[in-house]
Amino acid sequence: MVSSDIATRELENPIDVAEYLFRRLHEVGVRSVHGVPGDYNLAALDYVPKCGLNWVGNCNELNAGYAADGYARVKGISALVTTFGVGELSALNAIAGAYSEFVPIVHIVGQPNTKSQRDGMLLHHTLGNGDFNVFTRMSEDISCYVARLNDPLDAATLIDSAIRQCWIRSRPVYVALPTDIVNAKVNGDRLKKPIDLSLPENNPEKEDYVVEVVLKYLRAAKNPVILVDACAIRHRTLEEVHDLVEASGLPTFVTPMGKGAVDETHKNFGGVYAGNGSNPGVGEVVESSDLVLSIGAIKSDFNTSGFTYRIGQLNTIDFHSTYVRVRYSEYPDTNMKGVLRKIIQRMGTLSPASVPQVNNRLPDSELKSSDQTITHAWLWPTVGQWLKPHDIVLTETGTANFGIWDTRFPAQVTAISQVLWGSIGYSLGSCQGAAMAAKEQGNRRTILFIGDGSTQLTVQELSTMLSNKLNPIIFVICNEGYTIERYIHGWDASYNDIQPWDYFNIPKVFGAKEGYKGYRIKTRDELTKLFADQAFCHHDSLQLVELYMPREDAPAALKLTAEAAATLNK
Amino acid sequence: MVSSDIATRELENPIDVAEYLFRRLHEVGVRSVHGVPGDYNLAALDYVPKCGLNWVGNCNELNAGYAADGYARVKGISALVTTFGVGELSALNAIAGAYSEFVPIVHIVGQPNTKSQRDGMLLHHTLGNGDFNVFTRMSEDISCYVARLNDPLDAATLIDSAIRQCWIRSRPVYVALPTDIVNAKVNGDRLKKPIDLSLPENNPEKEDYVVEVVLKYLRAAKNPVILVDACAIRHRTLEEVHDLVEASGLPTFVTPMGKGAVDETHKNFGGVYAGNGSNPGVGEVVESSDLVLSIGAIKSDFNTSGFTYRIGQLNTIDFHSTYVRVRYSEYPDTNMKGVLRKIIQRMGTLSPASVPQVNNRLPDSELKSSDQTITHAWLWPTVGQWLKPHDIVLTETGTANFGIWDTRFPAQVTAISQVLWGSIGYSLGSCQGAAMAAKEQGNRRTILFIGDGSTQLTVQELSTMLSNKLNPIIFVICNEGYTIERYIHGWDASYNDIQPWDYFNIPKVFGAKEGYKGYRIKTRDELTKLFADQAFCHHDSLQLVELYMPREDAPAALKLTAEAAATLNK
Repeated sequence: MVSSDIATRELENPIDVAEYLFRRLHEVGVRSVHGVPGDYNLAALDYVPKCGLNWVGNCNELNAGYAADGYARVKGISALVTTFGVGELSALNAIAGAYSEFVPIVHIVGQPNTKSQRDGMLLHHTLGNGDFNVFTRMSEDISCYVARLNDPLDAATLIDSAIRQCWIRSRPVYVALPTDIVNAKVNGDRLKKPIDLSLPENNPEKEDYVVEVVLKYLRAAKNPVILVDACAIRHRTLEEVHDLVEASGLPTFVTPMGKGAVDETHKNFGGVYAGNGSNPGVGEVVESSDLVLSIGAIKSDFNTSGFTYRIGQLNTIDFHSTYVRVRYSEYPDTNMKGVLRKIIQRMGTLSPASVPQVNNRLPDSELKSSDQTITHAWLWPTVGQWLKPHDIVLTETGTANFGIWDTRFPAQVTAISQVLWGSIGYSLGSCQGAAMAAKEQGNRRTILFIGDGSTQLTVQELSTMLSNKLNPIIFVICNEGYTIERYIHGWDASYNDIQPWDYFNIPKVFGAKEGYKGYRIKTRDELTKLFADQAFCHHDSLQLVELYMPREDAPAALKLTAEAAATLNK
Repeated sequence: MVSSDIATRELENPIDVAEYLFRRLHEVGVRSVHGVPGDYNLAALDYVPKCGLNWVGNCNELNAGYAADGYARVKGISALVTTFGVGELSALNAIAGAYSEFVPIVHIVGQPNTKSQRDGMLLHHTLGNGDFNVFTRMSEDISCYVARLNDPLDAATLIDSAIRQCWIRSRPVYVALPTDIVNAKVNGDRLKKPIDLSLPENNPEKEDYVVEVVLKYLRAAKNPVILVDACAIRHRTLEEVHDLVEASGLPTFVTPMGKGAVDETHKNFGGVYAGNGSNPGVGEVVESSDLVLSIGAIKSDFNTSGFTYRIGQLNTIDFHSTYVRVRYSEYPDTNMKGVLRKIIQRMGTLSPASVPQVNNRLPDSELKSSDQTITHAWLWPTVGQWLKPHDIVLTETGTANFGIWDTRFPAQVTAISQVLWGSIGYSLGSCQGAAMAAKEQGNRRTILFIGDGSTQLTVQELSTMLSNKLNPIIFVICNEGYTIERYIHGWDASYNDIQPWDYFNIPKVFGAKEGYKGYRIKTRDELTKLFADQAFCHHDSLQLVELYMPREDAPAALKLTAEAAATLNK
């Protein structure tokens, strides 16, 4: 209190810490704040509407964290508010996922009064041992920056640093906001100067050096290709990627985590590379290339069909947010954005090889079949024919996350999934956040494919979608349980079964109004008809489709990856 | 692999590590294992039924953790199985709650193969940085023991230590079980000798000394009382408490967290002491006592109506699991059990003061009222008239947790709540675990009171209750949102509102069969009639009662405590 009073007297334009924080979040593009109220954050929540922000009250904190993740993947950054101990710990899985997958979330945790903390009071939501730092410590390894707002004198500086680090490192940050700091005063004039979100510039001489090395190999290569992965998206390098694809004319591929990074209708686009699980014809082209320009790679098991890449390091140039690696030569502290921009400017004309044709044509076996069963082999190209430019497509860890490899996107599609972290249930929460972001961006369509097993983890976010009047289209793949796990272990084990739910009617018990539409789809004809229905394609309320598929069916890539995972577990 | 092979050759009766683990859990009383399957724990789950255990597949890990907590509070100990990263982090809030409130849960985390960990492979469910210890570290501060089963040579020893520590310290332990250790071999002959669950014995001379000091003050006291709190329950001291109450004849009170610790129909029982929120007449007796025998106290804010105790330390003897304190003299490393037993044997005859009368009589104002509105003042004594011996009664953090202070229990009631940790949504998950434990104990009734706001966090556990054919009676207090929070801050703030749900029909969409019964109760007469209905009182399936109460009504104790919390937050 004392330092706050002194500070206030010195400030010409004093504003409350919470107002400063939320106005800064507004400045960087946040319009909706996710979270759950709790008594240590309530006073802070009063500032949300005052700062032009929309409060999304989620049903629980894990779901709120997932939603903040989905929102950030569409809007660039997001904010999550939880309460001390009970709230923040419930969100940790979501925060760890965002850390793992480079998603920028500002996690604001309402804490007890600083005096109560200093006195070690035996408050609710504590471990009863007077340790008020234990929960912050638990977040340290999954946050790229921790700001403890314990004193108004440095609160504004810490807030600015937290938001900057969140943005440029594209990872979660943790902001501890005690109840008595919420309305302590900071200098409002600081807001006149925007937060610096620019990346640290590369050393120009070093950058030029790297560019020349890359160009040397690029010009010497006979059949170079571009392979785009997750970090190109997460580190905001898609403009450079697009210009590189366009200017070079090189055959361009994406990894599963890179889906949505490039225009899949572009003539240079050749499909998904994922080792053994690659689209037909892609493995041959990529693996026979004498130079792979690998942009933002995350070579995780599920992103590589179980570590089945066959690309030699001698044929690889890796571009990353913090380093470039040419064959085995590493260039640390070098951001790929600057390097790629100069490569585009300086590379001149290349002679690209031809690109495999990709489209959403069904495999011949499916075209000839008269079977009405909805199989993965049939579903995913069919989905590709139905999607529209600017759609946001979410796929849950499970069959959907692998099936989507066979879907060719229209232009400007945003794909959201959690291939590395792989927390089941993620996509339903994420879908809420993505749909909110979509609404803010002029009502892009938000489409989710999720399994019945995964739906059960986070089902209550259907309620948040309803209360916020969002209109995603949710396909619940009804295949009687955890199919991805059956492929790894326990084909008939009862632990992979789930309780049968009436998904169709769940939105109704969660308060859906008349606008809600549900569907039960069991045949190919029914789904084809639904996809052709314009009222279905553009509806202003939530729609849920029960999509019945065989229990034992899975995309080919999932089968390969699950087999590799099972072997690794032994 | 090598050490395992060597070990196997040396073992006369080799058994698999997972079998050893689950057989030990069976030995200490576990019959049902809670959790969610994940690919790093699937192989371990195969051993659950083989060891005579029942697998409860929860809908998500937080709920599974809550359920394990509820199960442990009834059965004495429980087991929770999650998977690496995604699964275990989702459960952390539940584990922290169990740590805070002294609930023994063996948390078994399925981890990747030890070789993959050593090689730092880029596996799913990792942060992508090769750190396989980060999640274990996050659990260290909320576990009283961590066993990393990375080598079969010490696996059995670590398992025994983990279970022993879990039991005697009554707190969660963490057991990391990599996939390749699951079927590594350990010495099965160890199982012939039971795990030692005995408490370390007090030093007899010191114990005698403490007993004499206590007796000196007890004999000199004019109007001593007994005050029983949470740790008497959690540290298994209820037999000593009961004998002390019986032998001494002293007026006996419980704190809110001590509800259920003593027979509330006993002639010595005088009600709930919680400072300003005490039952009528109780504060006067306890605070005028010249010696309070305080057994297992946790003097947290919500347990003391906001730190409003008026008991001087000079009038207090504190009994704890690890120390005794007489006035200001501390006796560390002294367990209360041994001390209390000797006090009972040696104290001789005391001259107890009279005890306040307690019963479930309604306040006069309620008796005279013709209003049919179900208010808290009317509800909780009425509930007390309806409860039966051996019932398990759960109350959610919120109005129910404070209302239950006004309910006088029949004998042998187990009360479950989270007064210190206070994570909303806890009680619904906990109810699933408690109901499973109740079934194992010959079908005791399990009864839950939870608010509509809290229900939304963990609603899917209704499904787990259904799939496991459990028959709790669940009262959902429908009062339009987070009432406890409104009393702290934001009386009319929209963040304290919730989406209106059709709770009555939720079990139906979660697969309830015909046995399910739902009720909508809006008047006192309706509830009185329902309580009188024997078919309702004893039913073999889940029952859910929507209990409509005014948005702005709350138990008097909640109002006092919320006011204190709001003041502390400033």
